[in-house]
Amino acid sequence: MEGKEEDVRLGANKFNERQPIGTAAQIPDGKDYTEPPPAPFFEPSELTSWSFYRAGIAEFVATFLFLYITVLTVMGVVKEDSKCKTVGIQGIAWAFGGMIFALVYCTAGISGGHINPAVTFGLFLGRKLSLTRALYYMVMQCLGAICGAGVVKGFMGSAQYERLNGGANFVAHGYTKGDGLGAEIIGTFVLVYTVFSATDAKRSARDSHVPILAPLPIGFAVFLVHLATIPITGTGINPARSLGAAIIFNRGHAWDDHWIFWVGPFIGAALAALYHVVVIRAIPFKSK
Amino acid sequence: MEGKEEDVRLGANKFNERQPIGTAAQIPDGKDYTEPPPAPFFEPSELTSWSFYRAGIAEFVATFLFLYITVLTVMGVVKEDSKCKTVGIQGIAWAFGGMIFALVYCTAGISGGHINPAVTFGLFLGRKLSLTRALYYMVMQCLGAICGAGVVKGFMGSAQYERLNGGANFVAHGYTKGDGLGAEIIGTFVLVYTVFSATDAKRSARDSHVPILAPLPIGFAVFLVHLATIPITGTGINPARSLGAAIIFNRGHAWDDHWIFWVGPFIGAALAALYHVVVIRAIPFKSK
Amino acid sequence: MEGKEEDVRLGANKFNERQPIGTAAQIPDGKDYTEPPPAPFFEPSELTSWSFYRAGIAEFVATFLFLYITVLTVMGVVKEDSKCKTVGIQGIAWAFGGMIFALVYCTAGISGGHINPAVTFGLFLGRKLSLTRALYYMVMQCLGAICGAGVVKGFMGSAQYERLNGGANFVAHGYTKGDGLGAEIIGTFVLVYTVFSATDAKRSARDSHVPILAPLPIGFAVFLVHLATIPITGTGINPARSLGAAIIFNRGHAWDDHWIFWVGPFIGAALAALYHVVVIRAIPFKSK
Amino acid sequence: MEGKEEDVRLGANKFNERQPIGTAAQIPDGKDYTEPPPAPFFEPSELTSWSFYRAGIAEFVATFLFLYITVLTVMGVVKEDSKCKTVGIQGIAWAFGGMIFALVYCTAGISGGHINPAVTFGLFLGRKLSLTRALYYMVMQCLGAICGAGVVKGFMGSAQYERLNGGANFVAHGYTKGDGLGAEIIGTFVLVYTVFSATDAKRSARDSHVPILAPLPIGFAVFLVHLATIPITGTGINPARSLGAAIIFNRGHAWDDHWIFWVGPFIGAALAALYHVVVIRAIPFKSK
Repeated sequence: MEGKEEDVRLGANKFNERQPIGTAAQIPDGKDYTEPPPAPFFEPSELTSWSFYRAGIAEFVATFLFLYITVLTVMGVVKEDSKCKTVGIQGIAWAFGGMIFALVYCTAGISGGHINPAVTFGLFLGRKLSLTRALYYMVMQCLGAICGAGVVKGFMGSAQYERLNGGANFVAHGYTKGDGLGAEIIGTFVLVYTVFSATDAKRSARDSHVPILAPLPIGFAVFLVHLATIPITGTGINPARSLGAAIIFNRGHAWDDHWIFWVGPFIGAALAALYHVVVIRAIPFKSK
Repeated sequence: MEGKEEDVRLGANKFNERQPIGTAAQIPDGKDYTEPPPAPFFEPSELTSWSFYRAGIAEFVATFLFLYITVLTVMGVVKEDSKCKTVGIQGIAWAFGGMIFALVYCTAGISGGHINPAVTFGLFLGRKLSLTRALYYMVMQCLGAICGAGVVKGFMGSAQYERLNGGANFVAHGYTKGDGLGAEIIGTFVLVYTVFSATDAKRSARDSHVPILAPLPIGFAVFLVHLATIPITGTGINPARSLGAAIIFNRGHAWDDHWIFWVGPFIGAALAALYHVVVIRAIPFKSK
Repeated sequence: MEGKEEDVRLGANKFNERQPIGTAAQIPDGKDYTEPPPAPFFEPSELTSWSFYRAGIAEFVATFLFLYITVLTVMGVVKEDSKCKTVGIQGIAWAFGGMIFALVYCTAGISGGHINPAVTFGLFLGRKLSLTRALYYMVMQCLGAICGAGVVKGFMGSAQYERLNGGANFVAHGYTKGDGLGAEIIGTFVLVYTVFSATDAKRSARDSHVPILAPLPIGFAVFLVHLATIPITGTGINPARSLGAAIIFNRGHAWDDHWIFWVGPFIGAALAALYHVVVIRAIPFKSK
Repeated sequence: MEGKEEDVRLGANKFNERQPIGTAAQIPDGKDYTEPPPAPFFEPSELTSWSFYRAGIAEFVATFLFLYITVLTVMGVVKEDSKCKTVGIQGIAWAFGGMIFALVYCTAGISGGHINPAVTFGLFLGRKLSLTRALYYMVMQCLGAICGAGVVKGFMGSAQYERLNGGANFVAHGYTKGDGLGAEIIGTFVLVYTVFSATDAKRSARDSHVPILAPLPIGFAVFLVHLATIPITGTGINPARSLGAAIIFNRGHAWDDHWIFWVGPFIGAALAALYHVVVIRAIPFKSK
């Protein structure tokens, strides 16, 4: 009953009941949650489970649909001279964020709903999944992304698709490669920080209002980063999305900056994992 | 209590507690949900139940309101030369997606909230409702759609309504009929896949955060497909919506492509049902 | 436990467990909810309760904030020649719908969160509140609306405010008064139908996912009606909003059509109450 | 069980069960919630808790990310002559509101998710946190805001950043300082009123649907105030956001009006605290 009551208080805490709203105090002897053990690097039993292969298929399909809808939206906006006759740049941001919302909702129960190698990398660093599974997910995500962008090219025709840059990511004129790398790092930090917040075992046990909304803030994080950084890099924060668009577009200037869209997201995801594990959860200090 | 705790973990699983977030492992002997039996093709007792007729009325009213609001929004955008003085193409996408969100919310408890023959067809293939009921719903949806578009024509006047294409679906200049068909297939797949994910008995038992949001991702799926494919077909993914607009508009070029907006959505819905039942749930393999 | 499990199924039903998703069958002998008794027309004990007066204050404050934010948004859009430099017509629709979402959320526990005489009228017809309370709410809503529009006029200056039409509702050029009345009737039907769906005791007991989202679809309903009917009447569907803007604007053409914004919403609310009580709930037939 | 059933009724009440939807009656002898005791002004034990310092770090990081995303979005819109090629003014409003939604979601369990000195001040007046903690939060918020705006200046280059006004707040041409102050007061009232509504212990115990959505209406409140008052002041309602932008921009006209963006939000927050504590909760009258 008492746990039930907890559920409905915004960020309630237990520190003398006089803490500010939402201050979660450290209670060494009264934990109301169970820290799941870290995932092993390699887990042979996984490979004999149908759920393992099904999870990869779900990641493939989700990333396929993600690239299909988003790149098609980008093409629809780019091909019109007057952006007012399209869904606009804001509509592109909604397409990316909204698809992540809907797809995380649909695949969270099957594969965890990563749809992004940077998210998979961040959760791997947080020891939430095995190395085997992380690599498998990343391969399936990249394959799905390539197929999704390929279908859009089929619809648009090669000539038009290439003229319109094919939704590929590169650093815009007026910004340095350092700006682009920084934008990708901070942008991915926002996304992966939100993912860690949504999946935190400790928080889940206390503030049940938080996980109920989980797919929504994750989608919003993607939307918000796009609002801010479309003018700089077109916004990657998802190496599979950048790779899929680059392979199908396959022109020099998409490949020149391509490393930024792998290095940036992976650094950002690592920083978010570090922030969550060391600062927010202080896990290294507890285990001693 | 243990089921309660499950509720608050994002896509938690039971596979050794070391699976990645959201990996739902197969547990042959420890199912925590009940698979409802498939609906029969024909169920005589339904026909004597007031709830059966009420469900049809609710589908009629919902589809009427859906066409009324969306076609009126389209008309308001199309009639202005400067799209900046309107809610814009993005506003049209919000009208379609938002109405589905609100109407699924309102009618889910009465009729299931289909408001779309393709959704009804997909759920019928998944054996979620009888053939009798599926056909009855489709008829009521089409009647509601015709009335909704008719009211908009009454407001706009025939001449203006016809000049502005009456919200009818057809393949835009620059795209082939194959492009249009493909766009309808994948778009409907996105929608019906989301509907199946939201109504999955297995998932419901495990991740209760998922169904709580159910009407929202279904509405977003419709919004997102519109963002992407309005430039190609105006976006059907709902044969009742396409039929209602075509009948009230009733000009040749709306009828020429009309088959696409029945064949495409039905193929997309069938693929989503297949993906859900065979790949995600693996129901055929379990029953053996 | 069984009720708990019910919660997580989208529109689950009890009719042989083989009904389509969301079909709520009539179960004469197994009701899992309690129909609250209808409110009396006059309830003297209310008048001695602080909660009665507090509810009126909350309605006043909410309607004040509603008019303030929305009319200020309208003024910001109208005063710029280029709508692209503003939040646009879509931004106006978001302001109206978003404020209703936030204010219903904030005041639902204090006054029920009506913020609209048409909603109060509809719920009165559904016997959800006494006549005394309904009249008291309407007076407080109208006073709040007048004050809210008045503050905006103070910010803008009289001359500019009147030149920009002060957010007042009237039927746009090219539409008849009948079109305007029809648009108000159907628009208010959409809103009040959503309100009844969100507050239905029967539904609440069965599909707990529905009420959790309650303020969101109510806000979306307002947003969607604005997307569709801003080009026709500016969208009233709320007599307090129309009255407040008309009194502060106080020019002839706002008063000429003013009756439409009382008659239309009240008819629409009455139809929604009738549809909900007679068709959806079939209450008259049950009591016999 | 009875409390459970309560959860799913929109604003249910206990006054004879015949009150209008959502009327919360005063029940002197039957309280179903516990009023937490007011926080002390100074609490020495806090200062030895790691959670106290962690909360400050979380406020710093959240305010850093808030300024980074929002000011970068503003820069992207301001630098283009044609606003149609950007996410538009509405996109700016989404960036501010959406970031508050995502960040309140992420930090509610760590620090309470204030991200705004006016919110901290309002909750301090409502005796929800100690003076020590309130001052500490405000310092960390301001430091985070300065760093966030600084990174954007690094990306844009000094010359371009200063030419584009750097996202700083000041009263627009055509409005008086009094208009600007009034807009800040009412705007912050809307925000802090929503925060109090979301965190009310009484409401939480009764209408559990309300807190579940908590971060969403708080984010929407920020979005809505931006829709309305961007044309007047650019919208502050957050002294840390105004200070961070002003310090990094550091030109005379940003400093001339700067007092408005501290005095306005603090008055608005105080009025919201007063309204909530005295009118809605009537706490002073109960304690006698």
